[in-house]
Amino acid sequence: MRMSEGVEWALHSCLNLTWVETGEAMTAARLAAFYELPAAYLNKQLQALARAGIVTSTPGPRGGFRLARPPERITLLDVVTAIEGPGEAFRCEEVLRQGPGGRSDVDYRKACFVSQAMRRAELAWRKELAGQTLADIKEMVERHLPGTPAATRDWFASRRP
Amino acid sequence: MRMSEGVEWALHSCLNLTWVETGEAMTAARLAAFYELPAAYLNKQLQALARAGIVTSTPGPRGGFRLARPPERITLLDVVTAIEGPGEAFRCEEVLRQGPGGRSDVDYRKACFVSQAMRRAELAWRKELAGQTLADIKEMVERHLPGTPAATRDWFASRRP
Repeated sequence: MRMSEGVEWALHSCLNLTWVETGEAMTAARLAAFYELPAAYLNKQLQALARAGIVTSTPGPRGGFRLARPPERITLLDVVTAIEGPGEAFRCEEVLRQGPGGRSDVDYRKACFVSQAMRRAELAWRKELAGQTLADIKEMVERHLPGTPAATRDWFASRRP
Repeated sequence: MRMSEGVEWALHSCLNLTWVETGEAMTAARLAAFYELPAAYLNKQLQALARAGIVTSTPGPRGGFRLARPPERITLLDVVTAIEGPGEAFRCEEVLRQGPGGRSDVDYRKACFVSQAMRRAELAWRKELAGQTLADIKEMVERHLPGTPAATRDWFASRRP
């Protein structure tokens, strides 16, 4: 079971968006260049973030991506779900239905105790992800590495197209 | 991000092993027949459980799989780890190292706040999985579906090779 590396890229790119000059839209190419990532692949992640309402995408020569709302209102779960989809990692295939006495009128995703236990664990994971926002991480970075916002802003400014 | 369906199969097969006649080893073919699963694929999961010390595998005509320890001492995390491997779902690729100012002497899997936040969530998931044993699920099944142990035992007994 493995998350796409796009989650890491998306989270760091969103953080960078919090540090660029207010209001400036950033292309996928510039965001990708920061970490030497393949722009086309990062663009796919950014499009997924746009579909999820986490960033807005504006077309045109001065277009690009901006955060759609303040980092206080973007949780890690929002980003993970945007990239990985809303499906659970443990997807109950209702194996009990194929067993002796299996019934077609029972929803084993709800009735099965294995399924319930696995879901409980996954809820704990989601709850933890939902309890952490981009602002929390931004604040930690700024507290421990106070030069980061300016350095990031300067880097992007120096590579303005 | 999706777990292999082998996790569901393995968990249910382990539960069935708690209900068969004491001491009887079960072949992958019989365990698979219970849910009409492909025996070769279930055998792979059972071999993984054996490598993890969750079941023992004995060769020979009366051989097969048995639980290696009491269900009180087999957690859901044990089974998930046996099938999915110990790797984390979010595997930090240390994207920060490729960024401006990235350093080769820093372990970003530890230093990066994104990585830390993602790990915290995953620990919550693992902790919840580790807090639930096969015995807990077995007990819930037996309380709500008291006929299950005997029905399972009888089904396997009737299909003794």
